[in-house]
Amino acid sequence: MQQLIEECLQGNPYALPRLISLLENKDPQRYEILKRLYPHTGKAFVIGITGTPGAGKSSLVSQLLHRVRRKGLTVGVIVVDPTSPFSGGAILGDRIRMQEHALDNGVYIRSMGTRGSLGGLSQATREAVHVLDAFGKDLVLVETVGVGQSEVDIVKTADTTVVVLTPGGGDSVQAIKAGVMEIADVFVINKADLLGAEQTCTEVNTMLDMKGKSKWRPPVVLTVTIRDEGIDEFWDALVEHRRFLEGTNRLMDIRRARVRLELEEQIKYLVTNQVFKKIKEQISLEEVVEAITQRQQNPYSATRELLNQIEFSFSEG
Amino acid sequence: MQQLIEECLQGNPYALPRLISLLENKDPQRYEILKRLYPHTGKAFVIGITGTPGAGKSSLVSQLLHRVRRKGLTVGVIVVDPTSPFSGGAILGDRIRMQEHALDNGVYIRSMGTRGSLGGLSQATREAVHVLDAFGKDLVLVETVGVGQSEVDIVKTADTTVVVLTPGGGDSVQAIKAGVMEIADVFVINKADLLGAEQTCTEVNTMLDMKGKSKWRPPVVLTVTIRDEGIDEFWDALVEHRRFLEGTNRLMDIRRARVRLELEEQIKYLVTNQVFKKIKEQISLEEVVEAITQRQQNPYSATRELLNQIEFSFSEG
Repeated sequence: MQQLIEECLQGNPYALPRLISLLENKDPQRYEILKRLYPHTGKAFVIGITGTPGAGKSSLVSQLLHRVRRKGLTVGVIVVDPTSPFSGGAILGDRIRMQEHALDNGVYIRSMGTRGSLGGLSQATREAVHVLDAFGKDLVLVETVGVGQSEVDIVKTADTTVVVLTPGGGDSVQAIKAGVMEIADVFVINKADLLGAEQTCTEVNTMLDMKGKSKWRPPVVLTVTIRDEGIDEFWDALVEHRRFLEGTNRLMDIRRARVRLELEEQIKYLVTNQVFKKIKEQISLEEVVEAITQRQQNPYSATRELLNQIEFSFSEG
Repeated sequence: MQQLIEECLQGNPYALPRLISLLENKDPQRYEILKRLYPHTGKAFVIGITGTPGAGKSSLVSQLLHRVRRKGLTVGVIVVDPTSPFSGGAILGDRIRMQEHALDNGVYIRSMGTRGSLGGLSQATREAVHVLDAFGKDLVLVETVGVGQSEVDIVKTADTTVVVLTPGGGDSVQAIKAGVMEIADVFVINKADLLGAEQTCTEVNTMLDMKGKSKWRPPVVLTVTIRDEGIDEFWDALVEHRRFLEGTNRLMDIRRARVRLELEEQIKYLVTNQVFKKIKEQISLEEVVEAITQRQQNPYSATRELLNQIEFSFSEG
């Protein structure tokens, strides 16, 4: 384990998949790994990319990778991808697009599924970001599939958040519904060669006008990934936001908020883990579940009774 | 409070919004309300409706309401709707469609936002379902906006889950990505007058074939809500699934699993609430956050130290 951590810190790419898997599977050594890696984090530029399904996020990321690799930057990509028994073949397209970078040692791509993500996908994602950051990646991209509250939570692990829309189809309205508009630092309208790109651009700008003044007005970048158009402008927008964050106190504010979130998440995780362990050791939940199902008991009183019954101390964990 | 609960149990619709708001806002009387209402739950037929944004879920629900009201059934609708500072006007369309039922006393419609939903939206939704169930609604519909993991969690509060797709546009592929295919008991392909409806239908059936045999094969219903087509078939499919659930042990199994989920959720909620309350009383998190942000400390060791410091007992709560 110590060796694996050392290899990661020395930049040996073979350590990455193993460490991330250990964390994802909540290996008993998880605590040791995170504790050792954490002091080496905080250097990577973390970018979250979200947007409606089918907006072309993977293609956009793939094109961006070509750009930043030419600049000599190393990159880690985390694709957050809820698993499904059907998923095997169907989402292969995304992976194929990414495989252009499979032979590039400066790029590491990792899919994270919901399967078995005790403690939640946002926790697993956050920890994978730490690994890539400690490894020394200049850039860490977190791409989410889907638009929903959990995707918004995942994107909160980023310094800069990109929302990808497509022209027409009410994409912008749908993004509003999903609550992702307000988290955007940069908007990308991909497939901008399609009819309605200008209109979507206007819609987004109108909404930004409605939002009122703030120190950073999210730029709206038009891209056509299949023709490699707008990717430079996209990268420029990301760099510009980075400069804004560094030039003001924003970066420290964001990171402080993120630390707070992670600390609270850790407290919740450790506490509930230990409580459920104790319950398992001391009480059979099955009888309680049966009594509640039969309406002889209710979940709220049962919870209080359960917690009063178990013997508990945090100092062991 | 007692009076409000009595009014709810006697079927006074004025009690509904007040009780649901008290629960949503985690009012100190939340425990009392849920404890009193719970014995009266378990009678309503709870249907979850999810699918890609823009698939026409609200229109479908609105048409279904006309149908079931004619049959004399009373209905509660919970629309789970992540809030956004922009949302004011943009999603009004959905509400307008629903307003056809505003004057019908047999229909109660409630939007639930993510704002302030301590303990998560799935908990708030579950509790609102209990209120409507105890009130005596025959049918409770839970409609979610967005496709993501949290939407899947919300839909787990239902007996029967409907996934709404639209033809073409890769809707079915996107639903797979979001992991919603596997939770469907009934598929609806809405806007079935559009090109590609047959193809989407075939895609879904192919996936169901791949999934292999099970006791219930989700039917695929084609609807055109603007022409009021397929709504009877949709209702029939729901009733058929209900009969299947009741005819086998499935209904009890589902409810037992749901009780277990709710019990675990309650334990987590109560435990973390109490721990954070204690931390607030006894420790300033700000210093810890600052030390972690500066990388002088890490969140994992800090969590253990914090939990060792606080004095804690469950017996108070």
